[in-house]
This record gives sequence, C-alpha cells and structure tokens, in this order.
Amino acid sequence: MIPKLRIVPLGGLGEIGKNMTAIEFGEQIILIDAGIMFPENDMLGIDTIIPDYSYLDDKFDKVLAVLITHGHEDHVGALPHLMQDIDAPIYATPLTLGLIEGKLRGANLLHTVDLRTIEAGDIFNVGSFKIEPFHVAHSIPDCVGFGITTPVGLIVHTGDYKFDHTPADGWPPDFAKLAEFSNRGVLALLADSTNSDKPGWTPSENTIAEGFDEVFRNAQGRIIIATFASLISRIQQVADTAVRHGRKMAIIGRSMRTNTKIARELGYLNIPDDIVVDIDIATKMPPSKVVIMATGAQGEPSAVMGRIANGRHRNLSVQEGDTIVFSAHAIPGNEEMVYRTINRLYQRGATVLYDKIANVHVSGHASREEMKLMINLIRPKFLIPVHGEIRHLKLHGKLGVELGIPEENIAIVENGTPLELAPNQLTICPRMPGGYIFVDGSGVGDIGWPVVRDRDKLAQAGYFFVVVTASPKGKVIGKIEIRTRGFVDNNSTEELLMDAEDVIIRTLENAGGKDEGIERRVEQAVSRFLYDETRRRPIVQVVIK
Amino acid sequence: MIPKLRIVPLGGLGEIGKNMTAIEFGEQIILIDAGIMFPENDMLGIDTIIPDYSYLDDKFDKVLAVLITHGHEDHVGALPHLMQDIDAPIYATPLTLGLIEGKLRGANLLHTVDLRTIEAGDIFNVGSFKIEPFHVAHSIPDCVGFGITTPVGLIVHTGDYKFDHTPADGWPPDFAKLAEFSNRGVLALLADSTNSDKPGWTPSENTIAEGFDEVFRNAQGRIIIATFASLISRIQQVADTAVRHGRKMAIIGRSMRTNTKIARELGYLNIPDDIVVDIDIATKMPPSKVVIMATGAQGEPSAVMGRIANGRHRNLSVQEGDTIVFSAHAIPGNEEMVYRTINRLYQRGATVLYDKIANVHVSGHASREEMKLMINLIRPKFLIPVHGEIRHLKLHGKLGVELGIPEENIAIVENGTPLELAPNQLTICPRMPGGYIFVDGSGVGDIGWPVVRDRDKLAQAGYFFVVVTASPKGKVIGKIEIRTRGFVDNNSTEELLMDAEDVIIRTLENAGGKDEGIERRVEQAVSRFLYDETRRRPIVQVVIK
Repeated sequence: MIPKLRIVPLGGLGEIGKNMTAIEFGEQIILIDAGIMFPENDMLGIDTIIPDYSYLDDKFDKVLAVLITHGHEDHVGALPHLMQDIDAPIYATPLTLGLIEGKLRGANLLHTVDLRTIEAGDIFNVGSFKIEPFHVAHSIPDCVGFGITTPVGLIVHTGDYKFDHTPADGWPPDFAKLAEFSNRGVLALLADSTNSDKPGWTPSENTIAEGFDEVFRNAQGRIIIATFASLISRIQQVADTAVRHGRKMAIIGRSMRTNTKIARELGYLNIPDDIVVDIDIATKMPPSKVVIMATGAQGEPSAVMGRIANGRHRNLSVQEGDTIVFSAHAIPGNEEMVYRTINRLYQRGATVLYDKIANVHVSGHASREEMKLMINLIRPKFLIPVHGEIRHLKLHGKLGVELGIPEENIAIVENGTPLELAPNQLTICPRMPGGYIFVDGSGVGDIGWPVVRDRDKLAQAGYFFVVVTASPKGKVIGKIEIRTRGFVDNNSTEELLMDAEDVIIRTLENAGGKDEGIERRVEQAVSRFLYDETRRRPIVQVVIK
Repeated sequence: MIPKLRIVPLGGLGEIGKNMTAIEFGEQIILIDAGIMFPENDMLGIDTIIPDYSYLDDKFDKVLAVLITHGHEDHVGALPHLMQDIDAPIYATPLTLGLIEGKLRGANLLHTVDLRTIEAGDIFNVGSFKIEPFHVAHSIPDCVGFGITTPVGLIVHTGDYKFDHTPADGWPPDFAKLAEFSNRGVLALLADSTNSDKPGWTPSENTIAEGFDEVFRNAQGRIIIATFASLISRIQQVADTAVRHGRKMAIIGRSMRTNTKIARELGYLNIPDDIVVDIDIATKMPPSKVVIMATGAQGEPSAVMGRIANGRHRNLSVQEGDTIVFSAHAIPGNEEMVYRTINRLYQRGATVLYDKIANVHVSGHASREEMKLMINLIRPKFLIPVHGEIRHLKLHGKLGVELGIPEENIAIVENGTPLELAPNQLTICPRMPGGYIFVDGSGVGDIGWPVVRDRDKLAQAGYFFVVVTASPKGKVIGKIEIRTRGFVDNNSTEELLMDAEDVIIRTLENAGGKDEGIERRVEQAVSRFLYDETRRRPIVQVVIK
C-alpha cells in the first residue's frame, strides 16, 4: 500500500500555510519556507514569532530539504532557528540564497549549513520527490513557486505571486511551465490567497514608474522614499526614476543597505555607480538633486522614517520643501503608527504622499482575476488555499467553487492541520495543538500566553507592591513599604496609600497570625479596596516578612 | 476698538477641531460640541479621552452656550464631565438632546443642566452671537451645522456632513440655507475634512439598501448585522429591509437598545412594532425569519460581536448557516481586532460579509467632490479645515487652494492653537500647552503620560521585585524574596533567580552598608544582569529592610 502524502501548514493563527509547510511521504519530509511572523498588537513585548514546528520534533532526521520560494522575512526569517534543529540542505535561487547567507552568518551557522543554488526551470530530485522551481513575479526578484512530483501526484505551490507582465526586473512569470504542469495533471494546488478580497487584477509594478515620474516632476526639494527593506523591485524603480530625472540616490537604514548591496553584487539590482551617494553627501547637495531611500514605511518608531518623524535621526531631519513618499501599504494593525508618522512629518513641514492619495505603491500579490487565471491554468483536482487569514482562504475557496471545483475538493484549514492526499482523496486530519513560538529578547519559546497575559494586566493598570513586617500574631511592625508603577500618579496618591495601609493592617489583625495563605488574603483585600477606589485592577503583590 | 474673534479647537493630537471648539468674542464664549476621543493602541489601559479644555479654566463663567451638532460620542461624550464645570445651556435638536439626556442622567446631572431644544432653521441669539442651525445629512438623523453671526462676521461650521440627496431619513441637507449664507458673505468656513483623501462623492446611505437586499435574498439562515450603536440610520435601513423580506428584527447590545428606544420614542426611527422581537424569541424562530442587530463592529472583545466570536455571549452563539454582516468601516488602529473577530466567526461556521467584499457600508462624511461643493457654495473668505488628522487638514487646505482661496487665507493648525479673526485678517496664535485628559476607571485626568509610559515598560517585559533584609553592614539576612510577572515563565527560571540572588548579595556586600542610594544601586545591578541574560528590561524594584 502506498503511504499517503501529508501536507501540513505549520504555525499559529494569522496567515495560514505562509511561513512553513511540511510535505511528507512515508519517511521523507521536505519543508517549504521557514519565515517569521510579526506580533499582533496584543502580543505585548514580543519581538517576532516563529511558527511552531513541534510536529517535526521526532522527525528532524527525516527532513531531506528546505525549499525556499523567495527572500522575504516571512519566508526565510526563521531559518537561523530552524537550521539549529535540522540537518538538510537549503535550496534557493541566487538572490534568495544571498539574503539567507547574511542571516545564517549572523547566527554563526553559515559554515554548517549546506546551501544549494537553484534556478527557475531546474529539475532535481530529493528522495522520492521531483522538484521543479518555476519563475513567478512578486515584489522581490528571483521568486519561484514549486512543482513537486510525489508518488501520489503532482503538487503545485505558487509561493507569493502576481501575474505581472511588466515586472520591475523585466522577467514575467513562467506561464508555459504552469500550462505544462496542467497538461501533466495536477493533484493539488496550494495558492496564494492574500488578495482574495481584491477584485480585478493587481496593477503591474511598472505602473508605479508613472507615479514616481509625477512625484519627481513636481518635487522642488528633496525626495525621501520609504519602503520595505526587502522590496528590492521598488529600490530598482526609484533608481531608474532617479536616473531619468537627474537625481543622485542615497540609502539609509541598515537592512535596506545590506539587501541592496547583496542584490547589486548578484546582479539583481541595476543601479549605475555614479548615481549612488552617501547620506552625508546627499544632505549637503542641492535639494532638487537628491532622492533618499529609507526604511520605516510601517511607521515603526525605531526605523528611519519613525526617527525622522520624531526628530531623532542622526543624519537626516525634515526640512521645508521635502517630499516624503510612503511607497508601501500599511499592514493591518500598523495603520495607526503609519498615519501618526505621516502626521508628524507634515507637522515638520514636509509634503507626504502615500498609497491612498498617490500612485506610489502596488501590491505584490495576485488579485481575484489572477487567482482565477491560476486555477484555470493549473486545473488542479484539489485546491488548497494558503497565504492568508481564514477570511481570505474562505473567499479563495468560494472562487474555486465558482470555477467549477467541487466544494469537497477544496480544503480550508488552519495551521497545524494535516491534510492527507491520495490520488482520488483529500482528508482533513484533526488539528494538532500548538501555534506560536514567541521570540522575546534572547529567549526563543521560553515564554507563552500566560506571561503575555500578565503583561496585558500590567499594561491595563500597573502593579501595587506591598512589603510589610508583622509579628507572628499579625501585628504590623515598623513601616509598610508600598511601591507602585503604572497604576496612579505618584504625586496624587498619599490618601489612597494611607487608606491602603489601613486595609493591610486591618486584614492582618483580623487574620490573627501569619498562616500559609495570609499573603494571598491581604492581596485580595488590597485589590478589592483599590478597585472600589479607582475602578482599576493593578497586579497586587504582598510580601510579609 | 472691536475685540477680535477667537476660534480655539481644543484637545490633543488626533482629530483636530472635532471634539470641542471654543468661539470667543471679548467676554463671551460659546462652545461647539463636547465629545470624547478613543485611545490609540499605545495609550495603555486608558478607557477614553476628554479634550483638554484648561483654556477655559479661568473663563467658565463666560461660557454662554454649548451648541451640539449631533449625537455621536465624539461630539457629546464629554458633556457629563464638562457640565460639572460649566453653567450654561446646551442647545441641540430633539434626537441629539434625547441621547444627551441619557448621558446626563447617568452622571446625575440631568436636573441641574439647562437643556434647550432647537430645530434646523431656527434663529436665536446668545450674547452677541446670532445662531442659525442648518440641517446636514450624516449617519445619524437630526444633525445640524451652525451659522454663527459674530460682530466680526459670519462663521459657518459644517459639523459632520455628507451631501446625501437620499439619506435614510429622507431629509437631504439644506442647500438653500448654505446659498443664503453665501449671499450674506461668509468670513470663515470650518469644514469637515475626514475624507479629504477620498476622491469623488461619498455614496448615498440609500445605496446600502441594494446591498442589504442582496444579503437578505441570499441568506438561507439567520442574518446578524453589526454596526455602531449610534448609527441610527443604519438601524432604520435594516428595519426597512427586514420588512421587505419578511424577517423579524431583534437588537442586542445595551447601547444600541437604548439609542433605538430613544430614537423611536422621538419619531426618528420608523420601525413597525410587529417586526420587533426579543432576542430570546429570535433565537427560537426559524433562522430564515430573523435578523439580529448587534454592537461590536469594531471588533471590541467586550461588545456583542466580540463575545459571539469568542463563544462567550449569553444569548447568542454562531450556528452553521448564519450570515454575519459588518456594516461599518474599521477605524484606523482597530483593523487587527476587526479582522480577528471576522476570522473567528468564520471558524465557527458563519459566512461573514464586510465593507471590502460587499456593499454593506458607506461613510457618513463628504468626499473630495462634496468638499469642493461646500467651499464653492459657501465661498468663505477664510477656510479652516477641521475634523481630521493633520494629513486630512493639509489635503483639505490644498483643495481650497485649487478652488482659488489664497493660501494665506487657509489656517491649518493643531488643537490648542487659537485663531484670531478680524474682518480682513486671520492670525494664527502660538499653540498652548496641554492636550489629553485621560479617563481610566473612575479617574478623570489623574494620570498622564508618565503612568502610561510605565505601563508600556511593564507591557514590554513585566517587573522583577526583590525584598531583602540586610544588616547595617550590608550582609544579607535570611531569604531573599523575589516576585516577578510578565518577565519570564516562572517554571523555567530557577537558575536565573539564583544567579540574581548572587548579584544582589555581591552588590550589597561591595557597598559595605545600607546608605541612602543602596536600593537604587542594587536595582541597577539587577537590571544589568537581567538584560545581559535575557535581553529584556523589566522594571526592577528593590526593597531593603
């Protein structure tokens, strides 16, 4: 009996099948991508999130390959962590591999990991799998999807894609290869659902050239363009526009500088040497002769645009006449930060352009009509929407039904839900426990929701800490020490603190002695008192000596 | 010499001139609106925000009237607080006054405040001001703007408006009155800038009827529609659609029930008695025969939709076949919560429709073409964009320039910036300090940014609390007590805590005694140690007995 093919999207809530997917046949596993997620607003203090791959814990030795679709953080950011557990080669295209090398070097893993360069159009075998990377267009060059011929059938994974006929790097997606897969017969299509709520066709990267031309024509002073550090295509377009309009270009922001350097060295960014200048030179040039590219398009306070907006950047401050362009779309959850940054830049005298009011950004993902084309090009037996929240997957699934795929052949699942494929059957297995691995400071996975929930309580109302010495009979000796932060303003609380001391003294006296549960009981009495007085619930802790 | 007219938008950052505006002439002040703001994501633990009106502190007795444009929270929510300080009548239209009464009753102020009913089209005098409320269309009935004839000239304040020819209540805006103002000559126009980044014309409330008809035609099971509690127009439309499609209607959510009751009593909501049912009846009826309206369209976890999404609502849980409609737009900063709620409802088996994928919401504010019409109808000498963030005001100002208003006649200012108007002159005065008054629990204005910043620190990495008894020479006596929350997982920290104890003992020994700054020095040593070990920065507090 042939074992079934298992497809397991790994991770927590958030986008499904985005960051890491396991494809498993018997004793052989290949992984597609190993990216990080960014914390939501209520995951307090968390830096980044690694998908929970504990599904692999007892199977690390069965992993034969890690296939990477492209070099964005949400597809490669978890590699430094994953590759400490897994001894298998990473397969990626040259630019993607260049970006991965930097990450592995930072984690001291560069010399222990086997990196293998692939090109779109290659065909190679890994165990029982035949792998065929194919070129797709996205907002970073050198992206691929994968055709994976398994003993059960051919699987096609699109990666992040859009059907851009005129991408910034001039390399349109490989329609012929998709048609060829289709002719061979595709068992399952795993396809990007990001924009399944966007009607029509995503505009080409090329359309931004016009928007940029208009910005450059109208700007009297300096132009500062913020975008994602990894949006290599956008950097190319700014460079092209700078050449057309006779401006020099400077780049600030460490990650963007690093990525640009790698992409230029590998030939994926074509920027003439003579237009590149250092930021210190750029700020001394006539304003109409420079364009500056910067990180921080999501309004992150610590990135370049955030620091400029707060007047805290070392090399660059806003001056009257500056035109600042946010060439990015605010990721849900970041809108407030983005708009606050924009408001602050306006306050400092800049003119600010962003995607809502100027043609300065397009999505890197397919819209509904492209998603239809992908389904009809591939004509899969089974459709597995991935890359999106549940709502996106549902809409993608519905679209599949509209195109004639039977509803029972479409699998909409959450991360952690294994799918079993036989040549004529798709089974959805029960979801496994697990979800996120939080990265906080130097800790990876050492804290979970209980700590985050405590942080949320502290964020709501701070803490109230009591240290009291008491006699065995419960009589308070000496001074009661109270420390509080994040609860009330320290200048206006003398009466509240005195009343709290009374509550502590009374509770201890009534208890008549220092038994096991006394600290807890005093905490409860103090909590109740503070809530009655303020309608706030700080975390109360009492130490009785 | 005639004193100058002063216009002072009050409040902090955020939307300018939205929540409260003072109009001052010599010893006479009138206020327009008294609303609250909602906290941004980084204003941790804050419930609501009242605009800082300390500008009025020494002038409370000069306030002659509080004019209210309409009954939304961001225009009336601060009245219970303001009316404790001010002894002047509130002027509002019947529905607005009905909603205000409920608020004042809750604050025990109903019998001490002088409430005066006005109607659009009225003309009345307050001190040297002649006030003319005029009807505008918005997403709640009975909205007005104000024409205010002052000794310096005629001021027109639009309030929140859209030029809706077919509003839900059938009462279009009073174009004739605007033209009449224009003929008299308008000194300054204060106009809504909310949608100054939206091209074209905001669709009529009426267009939603079609969208709702489609939802009702397609839904096999129950329909649940979430919107703002104060979006009275939307409630009317759902009721109308329910009548057309033969469904009964139930309402859940305290604030929406209260608002509906008031609006029905006053004749602003026309819902036949026989279609209204209680929620307990609704849940027992055939699913295809009911529509349920609910609060929580912003994804607030404590409102009805949030509780349904989490499976924690007393009366209502999602069942297969439910169609849930979010008839609202996510306010910037709320997107993440809204989408999470939608995802959870999908998980529970509902079909969810929202503004991006169905025609179920329109904005209550004018878009750019309407803003142009307003300016050209009024033909003001001076344009003062209000109701929007700085970016919106700037775009509104630019639009005024396009229409021929000289740039120097347009004032774009932040809240707290007085504008002085003479018949031929507009002066922008220096901005006053101040901004927000935070409401947290029962406290109003008792905490400010320092407490919120402490909460942010606690949210990032929690606290680490140490209680130690030491001899006068600095020798530790007995057990060191450590309490920590929100910092590390308590099950995995034994070694860290033991090492921290060593740091405490060493620091105390090295100090050689319990001098004044010893607690601070131990705190610094512990902080440094914890950061080195974990790259996290909890708030460290040390009490030495």
